[in-house]
Amino acid sequence: MNLLLLLPEDLISPDHARLTGRRLRHVREVHRAVVGEDLTVGLLGGRMGRGRVLRVDDEGLELALSLDGEPPPKLPLTLLIAVPRPKVLNRVVAAAASLGAARIVLLNAWKVEKAYWASPLMKPENLREQLLLGLEQAKDTVLPELRLARLFRPFVEDELPGLLGGGTGLLAHPGTGGVAPKVLGAPITLAIGPEGGWIEAEARSLTEAGLRPLDLGPRILRTETALAALVGRLF
Amino acid sequence: MNLLLLLPEDLISPDHARLTGRRLRHVREVHRAVVGEDLTVGLLGGRMGRGRVLRVDDEGLELALSLDGEPPPKLPLTLLIAVPRPKVLNRVVAAAASLGAARIVLLNAWKVEKAYWASPLMKPENLREQLLLGLEQAKDTVLPELRLARLFRPFVEDELPGLLGGGTGLLAHPGTGGVAPKVLGAPITLAIGPEGGWIEAEARSLTEAGLRPLDLGPRILRTETALAALVGRLF
Repeated sequence: MNLLLLLPEDLISPDHARLTGRRLRHVREVHRAVVGEDLTVGLLGGRMGRGRVLRVDDEGLELALSLDGEPPPKLPLTLLIAVPRPKVLNRVVAAAASLGAARIVLLNAWKVEKAYWASPLMKPENLREQLLLGLEQAKDTVLPELRLARLFRPFVEDELPGLLGGGTGLLAHPGTGGVAPKVLGAPITLAIGPEGGWIEAEARSLTEAGLRPLDLGPRILRTETALAALVGRLF
Repeated sequence: MNLLLLLPEDLISPDHARLTGRRLRHVREVHRAVVGEDLTVGLLGGRMGRGRVLRVDDEGLELALSLDGEPPPKLPLTLLIAVPRPKVLNRVVAAAASLGAARIVLLNAWKVEKAYWASPLMKPENLREQLLLGLEQAKDTVLPELRLARLFRPFVEDELPGLLGGGTGLLAHPGTGGVAPKVLGAPITLAIGPEGGWIEAEARSLTEAGLRPLDLGPRILRTETALAALVGRLF
């Protein structure tokens, strides 16, 4: 946690916060903060700055806030990610948020098992928690927009062309020989497939919706590794 | 596992392998391979190709091999990584191998806790296993060179200048304003700090050894995310 993210309900006045739970435990056990110390804090959806510890004990953490900085700008990036296995879902969602994507769509695909959608980790509370962890890691305060697209075809045919706008659409798809364009029109929409990849019908639908195939080379990377490598390459 | 990696001891003749253990279980339980099916296989340190299943049961997996392809080229990249927390060590090492780094140095730093070095996960057997998992993920057969540098100063002062050779050295270090050079001389050596970053004395030593500071921007990324984003940007 590189930034302590305050929620609106933590504020007891505009410059005074009180919080409990996971964040209190983290501040006590990892930061080992003491009264008088300054912590890096940010208000969810708002400004960032410092919080001076007024009190920290079993009851809670009280902070005097001085929020004078803006969060880092979001990347003009929409990520379409085929729903990963529950075991890696949390990491992928938090990584996508930490990298600064403005919008994340978790999308169905042929090789996404139905059980993935049924996982308790796909519940909105958990997904929001992972986004918050990504923001705390990256020192950001602004949640990306998160959407779940349970039906591949209606999403890709009816909604994706509109989401693309005038920007660049890219489809990570091995074996196509497509290279990353040198000059990119922002915004960028980037689609990353499931383990085992997109099936050809999906790749065709995504291409028809306006995405260009992008070949990452002979190495097959895990979703979160591919995601970060592509963001590093494109921005 | 996108490639079944065969060890020299699995070969019962140059074109015939027999294996047991983790890989047998994976092939039975995840691939659910049957007799007559072709699997993507590679020989550790050697060629890749197909292995036709001759037999698969509790006793083992027998394959007839046809190894006619070369593994993907390694990146001319040396990664200096400050030893991460045990909880993320495995993922970082496997990701570094999957990305194709030719050499990985796990390095001490001020903010690396002594307990990290004492973790059983730092044993050579485990580190090798993580490298193999990274190769199986990426469809590669060639282990990167792995070194442990328990003493920061002797490594950085005495060995690093030689390792750099005529290549480019880069030091991921927030707040320096350094940007990635447009034209890079291969090979590249890239140093990635611990959680909390390099201390200034370390950054100075690494710079004096020939690394240029590289600022990733205001977002602080987890080690494995920063690693992949940098490799994506540089190669």
